Amino acid sequence: MNTFTSLRLRYFAFPGRAEPIRDTLRIGHIGFEDEHLTPDQFRDCRAAGELPFGGLPVLVVETREDGQCVAQSNAILRFAGRLAGLYPVDLPLQALKVDEALDMGEDINCLIGPSLHEMDSERKTAMRKELAEEILPFWLGCFDRLLIANGSTGFIVGSSLTVADLKLYWIIDWLTMGVLDGIPTSLVDDFENVMTWRKNISEVRKARLAETTDS
Amino acid sequence: MNTFTSLRLRYFAFPGRAEPIRDTLRIGHIGFEDEHLTPDQFRDCRAAGELPFGGLPVLVVETREDGQCVAQSNAILRFAGRLAGLYPVDLPLQALKVDEALDMGEDINCLIGPSLHEMDSERKTAMRKELAEEILPFWLGCFDRLLIANGSTGFIVGSSLTVADLKLYWIIDWLTMGVLDGIPTSLVDDFENVMTWRKNISEVRKARLAETTDS
Repeated sequence: MNTFTSLRLRYFAFPGRAEPIRDTLRIGHIGFEDEHLTPDQFRDCRAAGELPFGGLPVLVVETREDGQCVAQSNAILRFAGRLAGLYPVDLPLQALKVDEALDMGEDINCLIGPSLHEMDSERKTAMRKELAEEILPFWLGCFDRLLIANGSTGFIVGSSLTVADLKLYWIIDWLTMGVLDGIPTSLVDDFENVMTWRKNISEVRKARLAETTDS
Repeated sequence: MNTFTSLRLRYFAFPGRAEPIRDTLRIGHIGFEDEHLTPDQFRDCRAAGELPFGGLPVLVVETREDGQCVAQSNAILRFAGRLAGLYPVDLPLQALKVDEALDMGEDINCLIGPSLHEMDSERKTAMRKELAEEILPFWLGCFDRLLIANGSTGFIVGSSLTVADLKLYWIIDWLTMGVLDGIPTSLVDDFENVMTWRKNISEVRKARLAETTDS
Protein backbone atom coordinates (compact mmCIF):
# COMPACT_ATOMS: atom_id res chain seq x y z
CA MET A 1 0.00 0.00 0.00
CA ASN A 2 2.97 2.33 0.38
CA THR A 3 4.36 2.79 -3.11
CA PHE A 4 2.43 4.63 -5.74
CA THR A 5 2.61 4.80 -9.52
CA SER A 6 1.01 8.20 -10.09
CA LEU A 7 -0.40 11.23 -8.29
CA ARG A 8 -3.18 13.52 -9.46
CA LEU A 9 -4.03 16.66 -7.51
CA ARG A 10 -7.57 17.86 -8.15
CA TYR A 11 -8.43 21.46 -7.29
CA PHE A 12 -9.59 24.69 -8.85
CA ALA A 13 -7.51 26.94 -11.13
CA PHE A 14 -6.45 29.21 -8.28
CA PRO A 15 -3.93 28.91 -5.43
CA GLY A 16 -6.16 28.35 -2.37
CA ARG A 17 -5.49 25.20 -0.41
CA ALA A 18 -3.64 23.54 -3.33
CA GLU A 19 -0.75 25.91 -3.99
CA PRO A 20 1.43 24.84 -1.05
CA ILE A 21 0.97 21.24 -2.24
CA ARG A 22 1.87 22.17 -5.84
CA ASP A 23 4.94 24.10 -4.62
CA THR A 24 6.04 21.19 -2.45
CA LEU A 25 5.73 18.56 -5.17
CA ARG A 26 7.51 20.81 -7.68
CA ILE A 27 10.36 21.63 -5.29
CA GLY A 28 10.73 17.91 -4.61
CA HIS A 29 10.75 16.99 -8.33
CA ILE A 30 7.75 14.73 -7.66
CA GLY A 31 5.77 14.20 -10.85
CA PHE A 32 2.03 14.81 -10.56
CA GLU A 33 -0.93 15.76 -12.68
CA ASP A 34 -2.17 19.21 -11.69
CA GLU A 35 -5.84 18.99 -12.60
CA HIS A 36 -7.86 22.23 -12.53
CA LEU A 37 -11.61 21.81 -12.20
CA THR A 38 -14.16 24.40 -13.26
CA PRO A 39 -17.00 25.06 -10.78
CA ASP A 40 -19.30 22.97 -12.99
CA GLN A 41 -16.86 20.07 -13.09
CA PHE A 42 -16.54 20.32 -9.31
CA ARG A 43 -20.30 20.06 -8.89
CA ASP A 44 -20.38 17.04 -11.20
CA CYS A 45 -17.55 15.30 -9.34
CA ARG A 46 -19.25 15.92 -6.05
CA ALA A 47 -22.61 14.69 -7.31
CA ALA A 48 -20.89 11.56 -8.65
CA GLY A 49 -19.49 10.84 -5.18
CA GLU A 50 -15.88 11.18 -6.31
CA LEU A 51 -14.87 13.41 -3.38
CA PRO A 52 -14.60 11.68 0.02
CA PHE A 53 -15.89 14.68 2.00
CA GLY A 54 -17.46 16.65 -0.85
CA GLY A 55 -14.61 19.19 -1.07
CA LEU A 56 -11.32 19.92 -2.81
CA PRO A 57 -8.38 19.47 -2.92
CA VAL A 58 -8.14 15.70 -3.20
CA LEU A 59 -5.16 13.60 -4.20
CA VAL A 60 -5.75 10.58 -6.41
CA VAL A 61 -3.03 8.07 -5.63
CA GLU A 62 -2.63 5.15 -8.02
CA THR A 63 -0.71 2.11 -6.87
CA ARG A 64 0.06 -1.13 -8.69
CA GLU A 65 -2.94 -2.73 -6.97
CA ASP A 66 -5.54 0.00 -6.86
CA GLY A 67 -6.26 3.69 -6.72
CA GLN A 68 -7.68 5.86 -4.03
CA CYS A 69 -8.82 9.41 -3.63
CA VAL A 70 -7.68 11.08 -0.42
CA ALA A 71 -8.99 14.34 1.01
CA GLN A 72 -7.86 16.94 3.57
CA SER A 73 -5.38 19.55 2.42
CA ASN A 74 -3.03 19.29 5.39
CA ALA A 75 -2.90 15.50 5.13
CA ILE A 76 -2.03 15.78 1.43
CA LEU A 77 0.52 18.52 2.12
CA ARG A 78 2.24 16.48 4.82
CA PHE A 79 2.42 13.49 2.45
CA ALA A 80 3.86 15.72 -0.29
CA GLY A 81 6.31 17.13 2.24
CA ARG A 82 7.58 13.65 3.10
CA LEU A 83 8.14 12.89 -0.56
CA ALA A 84 9.85 16.22 -1.19
CA GLY A 85 12.02 16.35 1.93
CA LEU A 86 10.11 19.37 3.26
CA TYR A 87 8.68 17.59 6.32
CA PRO A 88 10.99 16.54 9.19
CA VAL A 89 9.73 12.99 9.34
CA ASP A 90 12.71 11.74 11.39
CA LEU A 91 12.63 14.56 13.95
CA PRO A 92 9.54 14.05 16.15
CA LEU A 93 9.65 17.39 17.98
CA GLN A 94 10.22 19.35 14.79
CA ALA A 95 7.42 17.42 13.11
CA LEU A 96 5.18 18.32 16.07
CA LYS A 97 5.95 22.00 15.55
CA VAL A 98 5.37 21.77 11.78
CA ASP A 99 2.04 20.07 12.44
CA GLU A 100 1.09 22.77 14.96
CA ALA A 101 1.75 25.44 12.33
CA LEU A 102 -0.16 23.55 9.61
CA ASP A 103 -3.19 23.29 11.90
CA MET A 104 -2.88 26.98 12.79
CA GLY A 105 -3.12 27.66 9.06
CA GLU A 106 -6.31 25.60 8.75
CA ASP A 107 -7.75 27.32 11.82
CA ILE A 108 -7.29 30.65 10.05
CA ASN A 109 -8.85 29.28 6.85
CA CYS A 110 -11.81 27.92 8.81
CA LEU A 111 -12.38 31.20 10.63
CA ILE A 112 -12.66 33.02 7.29
CA GLY A 113 -14.79 30.28 5.70
CA PRO A 114 -18.24 31.26 7.02
CA SER A 115 -17.86 34.83 5.70
CA LEU A 116 -17.19 33.46 2.20
CA HIS A 117 -20.52 31.64 2.18
CA GLU A 118 -22.62 34.33 3.91
CA MET A 119 -25.20 35.66 1.44
CA ASP A 120 -26.66 38.41 3.67
CA SER A 121 -24.49 41.44 2.91
CA GLU A 122 -25.02 43.12 6.27
CA ARG A 123 -23.99 40.02 8.18
CA LYS A 124 -21.08 39.44 5.82
CA THR A 125 -19.82 42.98 6.48
CA ALA A 126 -20.09 42.45 10.23
CA MET A 127 -18.20 39.14 9.99
CA ARG A 128 -15.43 40.73 7.95
CA LYS A 129 -15.17 43.61 10.42
CA GLU A 130 -14.73 41.18 13.30
CA LEU A 131 -12.16 39.23 11.27
CA ALA A 132 -10.19 42.38 10.36
CA GLU A 133 -10.29 43.98 13.80
CA GLU A 134 -10.17 41.06 16.20
CA ILE A 135 -9.85 37.53 14.91
CA LEU A 136 -7.09 37.87 12.33
CA PRO A 137 -4.94 40.26 14.41
CA PHE A 138 -5.17 37.73 17.26
CA TRP A 139 -3.91 34.90 15.01
CA LEU A 140 -1.26 37.08 13.37
CA GLY A 141 -0.02 37.89 16.86
CA CYS A 142 0.22 34.16 17.64
CA PHE A 143 2.08 33.61 14.37
CA ASP A 144 4.47 36.47 15.14
CA ARG A 145 5.28 35.00 18.56
CA LEU A 146 5.91 31.54 17.06
CA LEU A 147 8.48 33.12 14.75
CA ILE A 148 10.22 34.81 17.68
CA ALA A 149 10.13 31.58 19.71
CA ASN A 150 11.80 29.83 16.77
CA GLY A 151 14.67 32.29 16.97
CA SER A 152 13.66 34.49 14.01
CA THR A 153 15.45 32.16 11.62
CA GLY A 154 13.32 33.21 8.68
CA PHE A 155 11.34 29.96 8.92
CA ILE A 156 8.42 28.93 11.12
CA VAL A 157 10.17 25.76 12.39
CA GLY A 158 13.89 25.15 12.57
CA SER A 159 16.16 26.87 10.08
CA SER A 160 15.07 25.54 6.70
CA LEU A 161 12.00 25.49 4.50
CA THR A 162 9.12 23.16 5.46
CA VAL A 163 5.59 22.65 4.24
CA ALA A 164 4.40 24.83 7.13
CA ASP A 165 6.18 27.86 5.62
CA LEU A 166 4.53 27.22 2.26
CA LYS A 167 1.08 26.72 3.84
CA LEU A 168 1.27 29.95 5.80
CA TYR A 169 2.89 31.87 2.93
CA TRP A 170 -0.14 31.28 0.74
CA ILE A 171 -2.59 32.13 3.51
CA ILE A 172 -0.85 35.46 4.13
CA ASP A 173 -0.87 36.04 0.38
CA TRP A 174 -4.62 35.40 0.25
CA LEU A 175 -5.37 37.64 3.23
CA THR A 176 -3.50 40.59 1.75
CA MET A 177 -4.19 40.41 -1.97
CA GLY A 178 -7.40 42.44 -1.81
CA VAL A 179 -9.85 39.69 -2.76
CA LEU A 180 -11.52 39.56 0.66
CA ASP A 181 -13.83 42.56 0.98
CA GLY A 182 -13.42 44.24 4.33
CA ILE A 183 -9.96 42.81 5.00
CA PRO A 184 -7.39 45.58 4.43
CA THR A 185 -4.38 44.63 2.34
CA SER A 186 -2.25 46.27 5.07
CA LEU A 187 -3.49 43.73 7.64
CA VAL A 188 -0.08 42.13 8.17
CA ASP A 189 2.04 45.31 8.10
CA ASP A 190 2.11 45.74 11.88
CA PHE A 191 3.43 42.23 12.47
CA GLU A 192 7.11 42.80 11.99
CA ASN A 193 8.25 39.20 12.33
CA VAL A 194 5.60 37.94 9.94
CA MET A 195 6.67 40.57 7.42
CA THR A 196 10.35 39.58 7.67
CA TRP A 197 9.50 35.89 7.46
CA ARG A 198 7.25 36.50 4.46
CA LYS A 199 10.00 38.27 2.54
CA ASN A 200 12.39 35.40 3.27
CA ILE A 201 9.95 32.65 2.28
CA SER A 202 9.10 34.50 -0.92
CA GLU A 203 12.77 34.48 -1.89
CA VAL A 204 13.51 30.94 -0.72
CA ARG A 205 10.43 29.60 -2.49
CA LYS A 206 11.35 31.34 -5.73
CA ALA A 207 14.93 30.03 -5.56
CA ARG A 208 13.84 26.46 -4.80
CA LEU A 209 11.30 26.49 -7.64
CA ALA A 210 13.93 27.92 -9.99
CA GLU A 211 16.21 24.98 -9.20
CA THR A 212 13.54 22.61 -10.44
CA THR A 213 13.15 24.35 -13.81
CA ASP A 214 16.93 24.54 -14.30
CA SER A 215 17.45 20.83 -13.85
CA MET B 1 15.58 19.43 19.89
CA ASN B 2 14.24 15.93 19.40
CA THR B 3 14.59 14.22 22.75
CA PHE B 4 12.48 15.29 25.70
CA THR B 5 12.77 14.81 29.43
CA SER B 6 9.10 15.21 30.40
CA LEU B 7 5.63 15.72 28.96
CA ARG B 8 2.71 17.54 30.56
CA LEU B 9 -0.70 17.51 28.92
CA ARG B 10 -2.85 20.45 29.99
CA TYR B 11 -6.62 20.20 29.48
CA PHE B 12 -9.88 20.17 31.35
CA ALA B 13 -11.14 17.34 33.58
CA PHE B 14 -13.25 15.82 30.80
CA PRO B 15 -12.48 13.74 27.70
CA GLY B 16 -12.92 16.23 24.84
CA ARG B 17 -9.92 16.72 22.61
CA ALA B 18 -7.51 15.29 25.21
CA GLU B 19 -8.80 11.76 25.76
CA PRO B 20 -7.40 10.24 22.54
CA ILE B 21 -4.01 11.72 23.52
CA ARG B 22 -4.27 10.32 27.06
CA ASP B 23 -5.27 6.90 25.70
CA THR B 24 -2.40 6.91 23.23
CA LEU B 25 0.26 7.85 25.77
CA ARG B 26 -1.08 5.28 28.25
CA ILE B 27 -1.22 2.49 25.66
CA GLY B 28 2.36 3.35 24.69
CA HIS B 29 3.58 3.37 28.31
CA ILE B 30 4.74 6.95 27.80
CA GLY B 31 4.96 8.76 31.12
CA PHE B 32 3.20 12.14 31.23
CA GLU B 33 1.60 14.49 33.70
CA ASP B 34 -2.14 14.66 33.08
CA GLU B 35 -2.97 18.13 34.32
CA HIS B 36 -6.67 19.04 34.68
CA LEU B 37 -7.44 22.74 34.68
CA THR B 38 -10.58 24.29 36.15
CA PRO B 39 -12.31 26.94 34.02
CA ASP B 40 -10.82 29.62 36.31
CA GLN B 41 -7.31 28.21 35.95
CA PHE B 42 -7.81 28.09 32.17
CA ARG B 43 -8.76 31.77 32.10
CA ASP B 44 -5.70 32.63 34.22
CA CYS B 45 -3.36 30.63 31.96
CA ARG B 46 -4.79 32.28 28.90
CA ALA B 47 -4.52 35.76 30.39
CA ALA B 48 -0.90 35.01 31.34
CA GLY B 49 -0.13 34.15 27.69
CA GLU B 50 0.76 30.54 28.49
CA LEU B 51 -1.34 29.10 25.64
CA PRO B 52 0.06 29.62 22.12
CA PHE B 53 -3.37 30.04 20.50
CA GLY B 54 -5.44 30.71 23.61
CA GLY B 55 -6.95 27.20 23.74
CA LEU B 56 -6.48 23.73 25.19
CA PRO B 57 -5.13 21.07 25.00
CA VAL B 58 -1.48 22.01 24.97
CA LEU B 59 1.53 19.78 25.53
CA VAL B 60 4.42 21.13 27.57
CA VAL B 61 7.56 19.39 26.35
CA GLU B 62 10.67 19.75 28.47
CA THR B 63 14.03 18.98 26.93
CA ARG B 64 17.50 19.13 28.46
CA GLU B 65 17.95 22.59 26.94
CA ASP B 66 14.55 24.22 27.27
CA GLY B 67 10.82 23.74 27.45
CA GLN B 68 8.07 24.59 25.07
CA CYS B 69 4.33 24.59 25.03
CA VAL B 70 2.79 23.21 21.83
CA ALA B 71 -0.84 23.53 20.78
CA GLN B 72 -3.21 21.83 18.30
CA SER B 73 -4.82 18.59 19.39
CA ASN B 74 -4.13 16.65 16.19
CA ALA B 75 -0.48 17.71 16.18
CA ILE B 76 -0.12 16.52 19.78
CA LEU B 77 -2.01 13.31 19.04
CA ARG B 78 0.20 12.50 16.03
CA PHE B 79 3.31 13.10 18.16
CA ALA B 80 1.91 10.85 20.91
CA GLY B 81 1.08 8.26 18.27
CA ARG B 82 4.66 8.21 17.02
CA LEU B 83 5.92 7.65 20.55
CA ALA B 84 3.35 4.95 21.25
CA GLY B 85 3.58 3.07 17.96
CA LEU B 86 0.01 4.03 17.03
CA TYR B 87 0.96 6.16 14.01
CA PRO B 88 2.38 4.51 10.86
CA VAL B 89 5.36 6.81 10.60
CA ASP B 90 7.25 4.53 8.19
CA LEU B 91 4.31 3.91 5.84
CA PRO B 92 3.63 7.14 3.94
CA LEU B 93 0.33 6.12 2.34
CA GLN B 94 -1.05 4.74 5.58
CA ALA B 95 0.08 7.89 7.38
CA LEU B 96 -1.73 9.94 4.73
CA LYS B 97 -4.94 8.01 5.42
CA VAL B 98 -4.54 8.37 9.21
CA ASP B 99 -4.01 12.11 8.75
CA GLU B 100 -7.11 12.34 6.55
CA ALA B 101 -9.17 10.69 9.28
CA LEU B 102 -7.70 12.90 12.03
CA ASP B 103 -8.60 16.00 10.03
CA MET B 104 -12.09 14.63 9.39
CA GLY B 105 -12.44 14.39 13.16
CA GLU B 106 -11.43 18.02 13.63
CA ASP B 107 -13.80 19.07 10.83
CA ILE B 108 -16.64 17.47 12.79
CA ASN B 109 -15.51 19.15 16.03
CA CYS B 110 -15.32 22.51 14.28
CA LEU B 111 -18.78 22.15 12.76
CA ILE B 112 -20.26 21.60 16.22
CA GLY B 113 -18.17 24.36 17.84
CA PRO B 114 -20.27 27.42 16.93
CA SER B 115 -23.41 25.86 18.45
CA LEU B 116 -21.57 25.39 21.77
CA HIS B 117 -20.85 29.11 21.99
CA GLU B 118 -24.21 30.39 20.67
CA MET B 119 -26.03 32.23 23.46
CA ASP B 120 -29.29 32.91 21.61
CA SER B 121 -31.42 29.85 22.35
CA GLU B 122 -33.51 30.08 19.18
CA ARG B 123 -30.44 30.21 16.97
CA LYS B 124 -28.78 27.47 18.98
CA THR B 125 -31.80 25.21 18.46
CA ALA B 126 -31.75 25.92 14.71
CA MET B 127 -28.02 25.14 14.53
CA ARG B 128 -28.46 21.86 16.39
CA LYS B 129 -31.36 20.90 14.13
CA GLU B 130 -29.21 21.45 11.04
CA LEU B 131 -26.38 19.48 12.67
CA ALA B 132 -28.66 16.58 13.60
CA GLU B 133 -30.56 16.41 10.31
CA GLU B 134 -27.99 17.38 7.70
CA ILE B 135 -24.41 18.10 8.70
CA LEU B 136 -23.65 15.19 11.02
CA PRO B 137 -25.45 12.55 8.92
CA PHE B 138 -23.40 13.75 5.94
CA TRP B 139 -20.13 13.28 7.83
CA LEU B 140 -21.21 9.98 9.36
CA GLY B 141 -21.95 8.80 5.82
CA CYS B 142 -18.42 9.80 4.77
CA PHE B 143 -17.00 7.98 7.79
CA ASP B 144 -19.06 4.87 7.00
CA ARG B 145 -17.75 4.80 3.42
CA LEU B 146 -14.13 5.18 4.60
CA LEU B 147 -14.62 2.10 6.77
CA ILE B 148 -15.97 0.13 3.79
CA ALA B 149 -13.13 1.36 1.56
CA ASN B 150 -10.68 0.13 4.19
CA GLY B 151 -12.16 -3.35 3.89
CA SER B 152 -14.27 -3.30 7.09
CA THR B 153 -11.27 -4.43 9.12
CA GLY B 154 -12.65 -2.95 12.33
CA PHE B 155 -10.20 -0.03 12.04
CA ILE B 156 -10.31 3.19 10.08
CA VAL B 157 -6.91 2.63 8.42
CA GLY B 158 -5.20 -0.71 7.84
CA SER B 159 -5.90 -3.56 10.21
CA SER B 160 -4.66 -2.34 13.57
CA LEU B 161 -5.33 0.42 16.06
CA THR B 162 -4.09 3.93 15.21
CA VAL B 163 -4.57 7.36 16.73
CA ALA B 164 -7.27 8.01 14.14
CA ASP B 165 -9.44 5.27 15.67
CA LEU B 166 -9.03 6.80 19.11
CA LYS B 167 -9.75 10.33 17.85
CA LEU B 168 -12.96 9.27 16.12
CA TYR B 169 -13.99 6.94 18.94
CA TRP B 170 -14.15 9.83 21.38
CA ILE B 171 -15.97 12.09 18.92
CA ILE B 172 -18.65 9.44 18.38
CA ASP B 173 -18.85 9.01 22.14
CA TRP B 174 -19.37 12.76 22.59
CA LEU B 175 -22.02 12.96 19.87
CA THR B 176 -24.10 10.18 21.36
CA MET B 177 -23.76 10.64 25.13
CA GLY B 178 -26.69 13.03 25.42
CA VAL B 179 -24.73 16.15 26.40
CA LEU B 180 -25.45 18.00 23.15
CA ASP B 181 -29.04 19.29 23.29
CA GLY B 182 -30.83 18.60 20.03
CA ILE B 183 -28.46 15.83 18.93
CA PRO B 184 -30.26 12.50 19.42
CA THR B 185 -28.23 9.79 21.16
CA SER B 186 -29.40 7.46 18.36
CA LEU B 187 -27.64 9.60 15.73
CA VAL B 188 -25.13 6.91 14.76
CA ASP B 189 -27.49 3.91 14.85
CA ASP B 190 -28.24 3.96 11.12
CA PHE B 191 -24.57 3.87 10.16
CA GLU B 192 -23.93 0.17 10.32
CA ASN B 193 -20.21 0.23 9.61
CA VAL B 194 -19.59 2.98 12.15
CA MET B 195 -21.51 0.95 14.74
CA THR B 196 -19.48 -2.20 14.07
CA TRP B 197 -16.21 -0.25 14.08
CA ARG B 198 -17.19 1.48 17.32
CA LYS B 199 -17.84 -1.82 19.10
CA ASN B 200 -14.48 -3.14 17.93
CA ILE B 201 -12.52 -0.04 18.96
CA SER B 202 -14.22 -0.02 22.35
CA GLU B 203 -12.98 -3.58 22.95
CA VAL B 204 -9.50 -3.09 21.47
CA ARG B 205 -9.02 0.12 23.42
CA LYS B 206 -10.07 -1.53 26.67
CA ALA B 207 -7.75 -4.48 26.06
CA ARG B 208 -4.78 -2.27 25.16
CA LEU B 209 -5.30 -0.09 28.23
CA ALA B 210 -5.64 -3.19 30.44
CA GLU B 211 -2.22 -4.38 29.20
CA THR B 212 -0.69 -1.20 30.53
CA THR B 213 -2.13 -1.60 34.02
CA ASP B 214 -1.10 -5.28 34.16
CA SER B 215 2.52 -4.55 33.38
